[in-house]
Amino acid sequence: MTHNTPSPRPASLTLLGAGAMGTALGRAWLAAGRAVTVWNRTPARAAALASEGAAVAATAAEAVAANRLVIACLLDDDSVGEALGDADLTGRDLVNLTTGTPAQGRARAAWATARGARFLDAGIMAVPPMIGTPESGAYVFYSGSRPLFEEHRDTLAVPAGTRYAGEDPGFAALYDVALLSAMSGLFAGITHAFALIGGEDVAPEDLAPLLASWLTAMTTAVHETAERLSSGDYTTGVVSNLAMQAAGNGTLLRTAGEQGVSAELLLPYMDLMARRVAAGHGDEDGAGLVGLLRLPRAAASRERGAGRA
Amino acid sequence: MTHNTPSPRPASLTLLGAGAMGTALGRAWLAAGRAVTVWNRTPARAAALASEGAAVAATAAEAVAANRLVIACLLDDDSVGEALGDADLTGRDLVNLTTGTPAQGRARAAWATARGARFLDAGIMAVPPMIGTPESGAYVFYSGSRPLFEEHRDTLAVPAGTRYAGEDPGFAALYDVALLSAMSGLFAGITHAFALIGGEDVAPEDLAPLLASWLTAMTTAVHETAERLSSGDYTTGVVSNLAMQAAGNGTLLRTAGEQGVSAELLLPYMDLMARRVAAGHGDEDGAGLVGLLRLPRAAASRERGAGRA
Repeated sequence: MTHNTPSPRPASLTLLGAGAMGTALGRAWLAAGRAVTVWNRTPARAAALASEGAAVAATAAEAVAANRLVIACLLDDDSVGEALGDADLTGRDLVNLTTGTPAQGRARAAWATARGARFLDAGIMAVPPMIGTPESGAYVFYSGSRPLFEEHRDTLAVPAGTRYAGEDPGFAALYDVALLSAMSGLFAGITHAFALIGGEDVAPEDLAPLLASWLTAMTTAVHETAERLSSGDYTTGVVSNLAMQAAGNGTLLRTAGEQGVSAELLLPYMDLMARRVAAGHGDEDGAGLVGLLRLPRAAASRERGAGRA
Repeated sequence: MTHNTPSPRPASLTLLGAGAMGTALGRAWLAAGRAVTVWNRTPARAAALASEGAAVAATAAEAVAANRLVIACLLDDDSVGEALGDADLTGRDLVNLTTGTPAQGRARAAWATARGARFLDAGIMAVPPMIGTPESGAYVFYSGSRPLFEEHRDTLAVPAGTRYAGEDPGFAALYDVALLSAMSGLFAGITHAFALIGGEDVAPEDLAPLLASWLTAMTTAVHETAERLSSGDYTTGVVSNLAMQAAGNGTLLRTAGEQGVSAELLLPYMDLMARRVAAGHGDEDGAGLVGLLRLPRAAASRERGAGRA
């Protein structure tokens, strides 16, 4: 089935990409009564959405021609460039839900703007089953053209919550990756904790509620870290400073050894602490460690500058 | 001032150790009207508690003689052995709030029991300013003699909440270290997240609420991990499997590079994922990673066996 309506209709949209996430998004818009024109590089994958009422375009260019609002949810940033290579983006509102980096978001924004489109980059904080279910807490970061965001906000809000992260088109990916990176650390810590009880007569379900409530309580460290980074004061009123924490790390490592558990997931953070303490900053809070991770990278700032256009 | 009462009184106790934590504990008991006899290796450090009404003993043996309930909160496990080397523990209830490992807790339990005492090991989930303030959520894990715990529960509950972790005297330290280790991973993730925005026009306070609520939501992974570890089923119903997560790690690493941030805190967990995927388990949930951390350690199990007595 090919969609032949040449003029954009209100509340209608084009969806590029019918993978797991694209299909979940399209399904949510169809369920909300929106007219959806879908294109996928492998046409068979668009069949599910077609059966629920989506029009299937034969080419990406044709799909882009069908609606002013164009949502891209493809494999990666290169796929966006390839799919839209010969599409006319003039007057189009392109919302890029494809996973990418801040620099890719900025470069893609410059590319789309140069071709006559308004552009919004996005970072989806959800997995496909959470899409279209408001109670899941799923949301999407958007950054770039605020007028685009405001005009299509109702449509964008159908599959998941919306959070506007700023005019800089790199910020949606930046926030997305910051949250996912922090989650990776959280999951590493959880993995180590469960490994510690692995040889013991402790059911994982006995540890779980204690661990979950402890970690939830400890997330408040985020706010203290933010305040200290903003003020630049890493020492006033610190209760458990880096020197104390570093001393306590010995018990964590010794326990890992006793329990027959590799400490590989804990060591880099402990090394960072040890370096800061050795540099004479044992009286600091953990916020003092953030700067140690930052490497001077002239190439990275040139790339950002170029992407910003 | 030396405390000379030879017979134990109800609701009175001996406290060995007047460091920051010991002083906070002693202060909470004194504030609740308990009679406290305190000993510290460096007598001057007991002055604060003395000024609030504690009796100061000249030796640890004398302090132990003063009360049936003896709380030790010393520098480390070796300090406990040294302090109590010539004390008569017969009929004493020794509660060890000194930081240590599970094997140290087990060995100390065997040591104390052989000397005629009942023994409870403990892990304090708090920093000193949280002690004596119920609203802080501070609590202490206890494991070992259940009769001791039940008999002194009211006294133990004065400075912080109490959680009994089981008869195995190693469990208090095991739970304590498991939670602290997981927190270390959480803090590593938070550190990386803030480093990512370091060169950007994003205030740490803008990221903080997003990061805190995201991490809080993600702590529910603890329960799913526990269920999967218990069932041994790491694949049924997995939405974001290790292969997908490993693929997404590329974006996290590329972003770190763009932002000029070292990925050192993220790499070990990503390596673990990559190894599991390479071993043909890409369809698993993260619970499949826990076993990879466990190393066969004959020496460790011998140590545990001996400590268990």
